[in-house]
Amino acid sequence: MTVKGVSIRHLWCFWVFLLISDAFDLSVQGPSIALNLPSSLFRPHPDEAAAFARWLVSRSSWGVLNTIASDLGGAPFGNVVSFSDGDPDKSSGIPYFYLTTLDPTASYALKDQRSSFTISEYPLGTCGSKDPENPSCAKITLVGKLKLLDGNSKEADFARNALFTKHPEMKGWPKNHHFQFFGLEIDDIFLINWFGGPKPLTVEQYLQIDMNEVSHSA
Amino acid sequence: MTVKGVSIRHLWCFWVFLLISDAFDLSVQGPSIALNLPSSLFRPHPDEAAAFARWLVSRSSWGVLNTIASDLGGAPFGNVVSFSDGDPDKSSGIPYFYLTTLDPTASYALKDQRSSFTISEYPLGTCGSKDPENPSCAKITLVGKLKLLDGNSKEADFARNALFTKHPEMKGWPKNHHFQFFGLEIDDIFLINWFGGPKPLTVEQYLQIDMNEVSHSA
Repeated sequence: MTVKGVSIRHLWCFWVFLLISDAFDLSVQGPSIALNLPSSLFRPHPDEAAAFARWLVSRSSWGVLNTIASDLGGAPFGNVVSFSDGDPDKSSGIPYFYLTTLDPTASYALKDQRSSFTISEYPLGTCGSKDPENPSCAKITLVGKLKLLDGNSKEADFARNALFTKHPEMKGWPKNHHFQFFGLEIDDIFLINWFGGPKPLTVEQYLQIDMNEVSHSA
Repeated sequence: MTVKGVSIRHLWCFWVFLLISDAFDLSVQGPSIALNLPSSLFRPHPDEAAAFARWLVSRSSWGVLNTIASDLGGAPFGNVVSFSDGDPDKSSGIPYFYLTTLDPTASYALKDQRSSFTISEYPLGTCGSKDPENPSCAKITLVGKLKLLDGNSKEADFARNALFTKHPEMKGWPKNHHFQFFGLEIDDIFLINWFGGPKPLTVEQYLQIDMNEVSHSA
């Protein structure tokens, strides 16, 4: 658990009875292996916090990017955006975005880099009949700094390939809207994927995961 | 457009060519009428900003609730939550939440009410093959103050019925986690549902919509 000041460690026993009817929903790993689907489809065990977090980020294609709205009294401003952290088997864990300053989020980030990016497992279809707020339907928030990438850097090349592969439509977006590549420099990770509160997970543990190893251990 | 300082009004002509292959995806209104589905399933025309916004909020069951993380340098902190604004045909437009201070979002809101709530149309399945960041796949952000409701108030009764009807699982959530009802007092609305930038939409226009009238005009 890396969000401080919140004591949620001891709750899981109260939730167990809610699980009984949903227990088999987590068995999606089995059919994925049997069908020889790409490694990115394997759902790691919830106890494998780093692998699980990377799986959730790698599998997802969109989320809510939050910045500080300088013109709305400093309110936290969430905005739906597409993203990619790389090709599924070569993912980095770092979410990259293709944003224009015609949209408020990019403008806000250029004034104040404080940001977070939030993803739910729910739209992936792997939560079964569980409610989106049920702790066993995973969610992750990556807290950090939203940074504009140097368009000529290797990181921008990685971001371009990552985004245009996952979101082919982006290649045709209007040049004169001046879309640019942004990346989230992660400082803190909030992951809920089971009962018992946020999983202890450092940024280092999260970033060092090799997604190919995740697939081999699944 | 109610988010200030952003000039996105003149963009739609550049996007039109992206629409051609997706134009028919917006025809989901037709089959809904033909099948005599509930009024909440009708997708209003994008030009009907208030009705469209209310439809998107009413149809959705979860989103990302953003608060200021007092223990993370004031970072904007997004969190996946379930919500309801009322029974589909009696919806209020005000999102209500069932939160515990064991989770950071409720704790943050009790210290600083500045908040926003963000919803994407993408998980509803009505965006066709469009990318989640494509402006014709709608998104809304309601900016305001996240307030704890008086548990004995009429508004709390409304919130309880709204939430427990849409999210029956909540009725069984652990009593000793002290879940409480929260509501978002809306100050500002950011709606994108087509090309040309955010739709001009005031809070008053949004709140005065009668969802039954929306269904009759669809």
